[in-house]
Parts: sequence; C-alpha cells; structure tokens
Amino acid sequence: MSLKSNDKLPSEVMPLKTVTIVGVGLISGSFALGLKDKKIASHIIGVSRTKASAKKALELGLVDEILPLKEAVIKADLIYVAIPVDVTVPIILEVLNRITDKQIVADAGSTKYVLSKAMEKHPMRKRFVLTHPMWGTEYSGPEAAVHDAFIGRSCVICDKEKSDSKAVQTVEGIYKELGMNIVHMNAEDHDVHAAYVSHISHITSFALANTVLEKEKEEEAIFDLSGGGFESTVRLAKSAASMWVPVFMQNRENVLDVLNEHISQLKKFKASLEKENTKFLTELIENANKIKKIIK
Amino acid sequence: MSLKSNDKLPSEVMPLKTVTIVGVGLISGSFALGLKDKKIASHIIGVSRTKASAKKALELGLVDEILPLKEAVIKADLIYVAIPVDVTVPIILEVLNRITDKQIVADAGSTKYVLSKAMEKHPMRKRFVLTHPMWGTEYSGPEAAVHDAFIGRSCVICDKEKSDSKAVQTVEGIYKELGMNIVHMNAEDHDVHAAYVSHISHITSFALANTVLEKEKEEEAIFDLSGGGFESTVRLAKSAASMWVPVFMQNRENVLDVLNEHISQLKKFKASLEKENTKFLTELIENANKIKKIIK
Repeated sequence: MSLKSNDKLPSEVMPLKTVTIVGVGLISGSFALGLKDKKIASHIIGVSRTKASAKKALELGLVDEILPLKEAVIKADLIYVAIPVDVTVPIILEVLNRITDKQIVADAGSTKYVLSKAMEKHPMRKRFVLTHPMWGTEYSGPEAAVHDAFIGRSCVICDKEKSDSKAVQTVEGIYKELGMNIVHMNAEDHDVHAAYVSHISHITSFALANTVLEKEKEEEAIFDLSGGGFESTVRLAKSAASMWVPVFMQNRENVLDVLNEHISQLKKFKASLEKENTKFLTELIENANKIKKIIK
Repeated sequence: MSLKSNDKLPSEVMPLKTVTIVGVGLISGSFALGLKDKKIASHIIGVSRTKASAKKALELGLVDEILPLKEAVIKADLIYVAIPVDVTVPIILEVLNRITDKQIVADAGSTKYVLSKAMEKHPMRKRFVLTHPMWGTEYSGPEAAVHDAFIGRSCVICDKEKSDSKAVQTVEGIYKELGMNIVHMNAEDHDVHAAYVSHISHITSFALANTVLEKEKEEEAIFDLSGGGFESTVRLAKSAASMWVPVFMQNRENVLDVLNEHISQLKKFKASLEKENTKFLTELIENANKIKKIIK
C-alpha cells in the first residue's frame, strides 16, 4: 500500500494485495480506479449482480476479474461494498459471516444508522468500517466511474470506536491517499446531517423536475431556456430511483423533518409574493445569501 | 462589425463604432468583453451608478471610458441596458427619449412583459429590441464578467415585429457572433417560460439555503458534507436580492403559479414518505428522470 510519508500511519498497517469491490458502479468503480492509479492494491476483484455490468467493468479496466461473492470475499484483504443501501445490509452481513479477523470490510452508503444497528452484534463487527465518501454525480453504472473522483472531498467515518483501530487506520489511509479529508461522526448524527445537506437536495431537484415537466409542456422551451439556472438545480433529478428510494426510506424521519422545513420556507416566498411584500422577499433572499460564507 | 459570411445578414446592416453599456456588471460586462474579443465594436462606453463599479470596469478593460448616461447615449450606435429590471423601465424610457432613429437600444433583462407594455406607445419603440441572453452565474458586478460567456447558449428575442427589422438583424447578428442561438418568443410567453425554467430554480435554491441554515446549526457539517449534491442545488442561492426581487415582483403571477405547483410536487414526496409508499416514491423519481431527455 502506497502511503505518503506524512500520513503518520504505523508501519504495521496491513499492506493490501487484493481488494474486492461489491457493486461495479459510480462509487466502487471510481474507488477501484483510485486504488489502481495510486498503486494501493495490486489486484481488484469485482462482484456484480448483472453480467452486462461485470463485462463493462472488465472492459473499462475497473476490475481485473469478476467472481461470485463467496470466492471474491475469500481472496480479498479489503471488501468494499458500494450498492444501494437496502441491499447493503444483507450483503454486509453475508460478507462478515465469511471473513477472518485479518480482513477488512467497508461500505460507502449514503445512510449509516440502519446499517450500524443491523451489524451491532455481529462477532466480526470490529472488522467493519462505516464510510461515506461525500462525492457523487447524477450518473450510475460502471461507465460513470471516473479517475481522481474523491480529491478534495470529505469522507465521513462513522462509529470508529466500534471498529478495530488498525482497520480504521487502513481505510482512512486509503481515502487520504485518494485525496480525501476525513471527518468523524456517529452514525445517527451522520444521517441527520446527510438529510440536511444531501438528501433534501435530491428531493427538491426531483420535485423541481416534476414541476417543470408538469407545467411546461413545451420541451423545446425547457431546452432553450435552461441556461437560466435550471440546469444546476435540476442536475440531481437524473439520479437513479434504485439508489435513492432506499436512502430516503432508511432516513425517512430525518428527511421528512427537513422536507417539512423546506416546504415552510417555500411558503414564506409564496406569502411574500402574494402580499407583494418586497421587504420580506428581500430579507428571505439576503438570509439565503449567507450560504456564501459556508459554501465557496 | 465583424460578421461570419454565413450569417446572411444584408450588407446594409449598420457597422458599429461605439457601444454604450448601461450597467457594468455580469451580463453587460461579459457582453462588452465579447464585443471587444470579436472586434464588433471599436469603442465601449460604460454608464454606472457607482464610482467603485465604474473604476473597476475601466481597470478590468470592460469599457474604454465612463460617461454620464446623457453623453453616453448621444455617442453610441447601440445602447445595451443590463441592470435590475425595476430600474430598466425608467432608464430605457429615458434612453428612448434621447436617441435618433439611427441608434439602437436593447435590454438584457430576465422579465419582458412589463417592459414591453411600458414601451408600447413610445415613438422610438421600433429602435428598441427586447433581448434575454440565457446565461448567468450567481455572481454580480464588473468582476463577475467573463470572456466567451454566451457561447452555445440561447438568446430570446421578444416581440421582434415591434422593432425595425434592421435593428433586430443587427442585435441578432451580434449575439450570433458571440456564439448564441436565437429563439423568438412574444414577451408574455417569455415570462411564462422563464418562470418555469429560471425563476423557480432561484426560489427553490434560496429556500433550500434557508432550510439548511435554519435546521443545520453546525456550519462545519454543511461545509464537510456539501459534496453530496448540496453545492449544485444551492449555487443560485448566492444570487443578489437587488437583481431577483424585481424579477419575481414583475413576474409575480407566473412565479406564484409555478411555486404552487412546486409545493404540491414536494407534498407528493412528503406523502410517499409518510405512508412509506415506496412504489409511489419510485414513480415520482422515475418521472423526474424524464428531464434527462430534455437537459443533457
């Protein structure tokens, strides 16, 4: 495993020969490309539910071979699971049932609390590291994987005290080598923050797309006029239901909480317009402008 | 005026010596840079309400000189007005009062109907061309102006039959030379479409920023987790109130109409989550995905 000299990782950190990625899509594929680019792993095995994705992942060089889950787990130093969060739970359980205490398992899902609870009592829990690299695009599948995906982004590591410190060090070391900043949080807090800062953005974007598709029957006008801001706010509306439905369902209470707040914020804009209250409208916009201080 | 041979503009199109830009900000400044880059005008005069912006526009080379409105209008072949839409109406009236029938006036505002109505009976109406280049960023002021801003974007020309055809040809010729595709629409339709495709995006983005600022008290978490989609949906929330309040007020009825639809679309997401109705949630997201066909 290639590590920068300033990473201060103890020399006993396990060097990785083989990494198995479960799922060969946007996140796992980009992770695999990073491992290869940085020479962190010498061999990458892919596990895929569909033959088409498996073939594509091989063609694109994301993985060196495709194997069934059972064999792929046996051979790996690290098993990295990046699949929709509803199937993550049973797959991680199956993986933990098969590993030895020399192997490490990590996930990359957008929700953490349900997963954390489901693994709580597993005898191999300490070999499992909960991770959420905060990067993504609206695309999915092996073709969506890109080089240098994670550079400059944050990666959340959850409940690290429940994992072996060496396993955590190895996983954090990899993410750092891929250019990420590590943030620690417990699983419950993660899900609250993720609802605010990621999940609600997807819901507003889906709802905005539905609004425009419902009201604007002239597709050409949408296309012609989309330079006026629509493209960026609606970008996420291209995201796959298979990924996002399970995220919203697992984080249902937090998402509903933020969604209620969002609807009430939109109603303030509505009220200001209905009453032609430019002072209130100005205040609402100037308050929103404060986001500049936080997001550059 | 430099025109491509395939523009099929009649040779009698007025060559431009001097262009005056009223307002020295994002749109007018980028327009001025384009005129210089393409050698469309040899001299550019700026008109600015504030000394600081005037100084900055000169420093940045957006304009060759700064003059008061009256003098700047007299000297110009084309007067291009790109200022907040509430002040556009009185300024365009003042400009039309001062021009001869050899001069052309164009605006670049985000609303068209109020302006179009206000100019309707002016004796110089035919020298005025209503334009809306569909490009922008969340930044404002002279520093926000960029080269090659309009390339590949659409420019809406409204009510062209109410303008002299040569004036329209000259203005369209310039926008084409700057790389834009011309779209024709009447002012009323423009405002309806702009509400759907641009104005609502700004409101959702402002409201989303307010939602997160209200609910998420940990600024560090917003910053750390913003890679998860938040950045793109909230980008427009940095936009200036001085520009957008007048837009929303002038296009109030259309914006309210779309905003009501948007709130009802968000309520569908809310209902699907409250009832744990994954089938309905999936349908909502898959419907939103249709935007892929329209926006690449």
